[in-house]
Amino acid sequence: MPYPEEAEGFQIDSAETWTDFHKRHFKLKPFDDYDVDVKIIACGVCGSDVHTISGGWGAQHFPLAVGHEILGIAVRVGPKVTLIKEGQRVGVGAQSFSCGECKQCKNENETYCPVIMIDTYGSQWPEKYGGVVSQGGYSSHVRTNERWVFPIPEGLDTNLAAPMLCAGLTAYSPLVRNGAGPGKKVGIIGLGGIGHFGILFAKALGAEVWAISRSRAKEEDARKLGADGFIATDETDWEKAHTFSFDLIVNCANSSKGFDLAKYLSLMDVHAPFVSVGLPEEAGQEIKAQNLLANGVLIGASHLGSRREMLEMLQLAADKGIKSWVEEIQIGEEGLKEAVTRLKKNDIKYRFTLTGYDKVFGA
Amino acid sequence: MPYPEEAEGFQIDSAETWTDFHKRHFKLKPFDDYDVDVKIIACGVCGSDVHTISGGWGAQHFPLAVGHEILGIAVRVGPKVTLIKEGQRVGVGAQSFSCGECKQCKNENETYCPVIMIDTYGSQWPEKYGGVVSQGGYSSHVRTNERWVFPIPEGLDTNLAAPMLCAGLTAYSPLVRNGAGPGKKVGIIGLGGIGHFGILFAKALGAEVWAISRSRAKEEDARKLGADGFIATDETDWEKAHTFSFDLIVNCANSSKGFDLAKYLSLMDVHAPFVSVGLPEEAGQEIKAQNLLANGVLIGASHLGSRREMLEMLQLAADKGIKSWVEEIQIGEEGLKEAVTRLKKNDIKYRFTLTGYDKVFGA
Repeated sequence: MPYPEEAEGFQIDSAETWTDFHKRHFKLKPFDDYDVDVKIIACGVCGSDVHTISGGWGAQHFPLAVGHEILGIAVRVGPKVTLIKEGQRVGVGAQSFSCGECKQCKNENETYCPVIMIDTYGSQWPEKYGGVVSQGGYSSHVRTNERWVFPIPEGLDTNLAAPMLCAGLTAYSPLVRNGAGPGKKVGIIGLGGIGHFGILFAKALGAEVWAISRSRAKEEDARKLGADGFIATDETDWEKAHTFSFDLIVNCANSSKGFDLAKYLSLMDVHAPFVSVGLPEEAGQEIKAQNLLANGVLIGASHLGSRREMLEMLQLAADKGIKSWVEEIQIGEEGLKEAVTRLKKNDIKYRFTLTGYDKVFGA
Repeated sequence: MPYPEEAEGFQIDSAETWTDFHKRHFKLKPFDDYDVDVKIIACGVCGSDVHTISGGWGAQHFPLAVGHEILGIAVRVGPKVTLIKEGQRVGVGAQSFSCGECKQCKNENETYCPVIMIDTYGSQWPEKYGGVVSQGGYSSHVRTNERWVFPIPEGLDTNLAAPMLCAGLTAYSPLVRNGAGPGKKVGIIGLGGIGHFGILFAKALGAEVWAISRSRAKEEDARKLGADGFIATDETDWEKAHTFSFDLIVNCANSSKGFDLAKYLSLMDVHAPFVSVGLPEEAGQEIKAQNLLANGVLIGASHLGSRREMLEMLQLAADKGIKSWVEEIQIGEEGLKEAVTRLKKNDIKYRFTLTGYDKVFGA
């Protein structure tokens, strides 16, 4: 069946066949009074997509179309929708629903809602919402509650805006929640999709920004993105010149292999937060209170960001002309296989955006 | 030699003989223009003393007199001392020196000074300060830089004030640095020496206070101390009714055996800090960013507290009539053996204060 009953997209059937995309129709959730249908025109390829389809984060609801950095056009809005207008260019990120009623939801912490959390792909909707498993943006359409649909400001290029919907917000929220700005020394660990936004946004917010990477291979890129300084952790005593000096570090590393956490923590000023946004597949790291004592560092994690933060980030990007580093790739079996394979190897500077949706799904 | 060249105290010679105290004379550091000599009249027995002498925290400078919850009289003040007057009743806590010049020292974070940190016992002074190993309060006198000597307000009983110098401040600082006060729900894990001050001070600061303990054995005590609620972690689903509800938890547990960190973290409101002040001897705990993601909790640790916080805490205790729960014990070979042996077994509600110094060291 065609839209509006169904969408068409590229699904993976198992973690063992995580590069074999199959073009299929699948059911959308029942249309709700607060829903917005988005006809997709571009979608970023997020590290989460690869972790999910390749089994790194454990069992999933297959078959599954991933993708949660969605740009498109609002082609249908429910009768009670007030936040989005039909025809508007909009984005959808990694989360598509929360209860809207709890303390967290009312406190702009909807990405921490303990009541209900529906991811844009791979979450089963409760029966009262139709019971289907949500399917992501490697597809023709998504149907999303208006609170999770974001108008895209004019002046932001569609293909550059798409990766901001997850990677951009993931970097932006911990920066603004932890005071990144003038007079603050901010470190960004890991120069990948999220990390490159970390540098762009920390700089745009006025902070002194240091890129922290395993080697100097990406130093030139980091400086082009706006980094004021660069630390390579394969150099002896790399941490020594920077102990007690960072006001905030956002850890965007996608792997914890060989990660000497104690050295990173030694970089922090007293009680300064060390916030992780990457979700490595490896085992965790041991911490003892003793390791946190020298500077009273706070170790935390951050999950996406609020609607307000999303809108502010997009506006900041538009106002300051912030340019994501994007390689476009044609959506389809081949393009997707290439994108996820290369992303798995970190062979991308620094984000793929899937384009050419009209060629595959019609105009 | 007698004071003022030397002090007399009870020393331990090795971790293997950690309950055998030997009364001896030992050299004091050379008297400095900013030093204050304190004739000791009481001293609390801190968990740190036991960890140190019994080898739980690794190698130490033996022979060693421990004790860092010191109350006494300032019997001599250096010519440049301005903070303390001769004859004043004063306290000395767990730290006795920091550089005084660095960013941390100038920012009321002297207990995080990265330049020099001299503990009240067991630290070797640099050669320019005489090179001796500092000896603690199980002795007749201590010689301490004035910045680490604290006037005791009238109205605070000596024996009840002594344990505040380390245990009290250790509980107080993370409370005030993390906003404990009216409208905040604060948890105190571990009802021992530090934890009982956690309840007393959190209550005095106006917070809603919950004691969190392994069983209900100490519930009555906790409520007498001022706890509004009590959670026993040996009960099934103990965490369920409290998820996402705590604004701050101060973890005063002295052991991490059987400690299911993930459940404790689930108690925290979004981005609320979980601050450890106990320093268990066991191995650390594994954390993954994934475990911190549901609520974006911040895990930290805290080390003592600033001079200002010490003075505020003592004044608060005097103003509000806060009473430490203290069992007095006569200083001497026997009393010390009993104190450290019982403390090792947590057989004390909730602090020993050593008294009767005049009987042992003269009036």
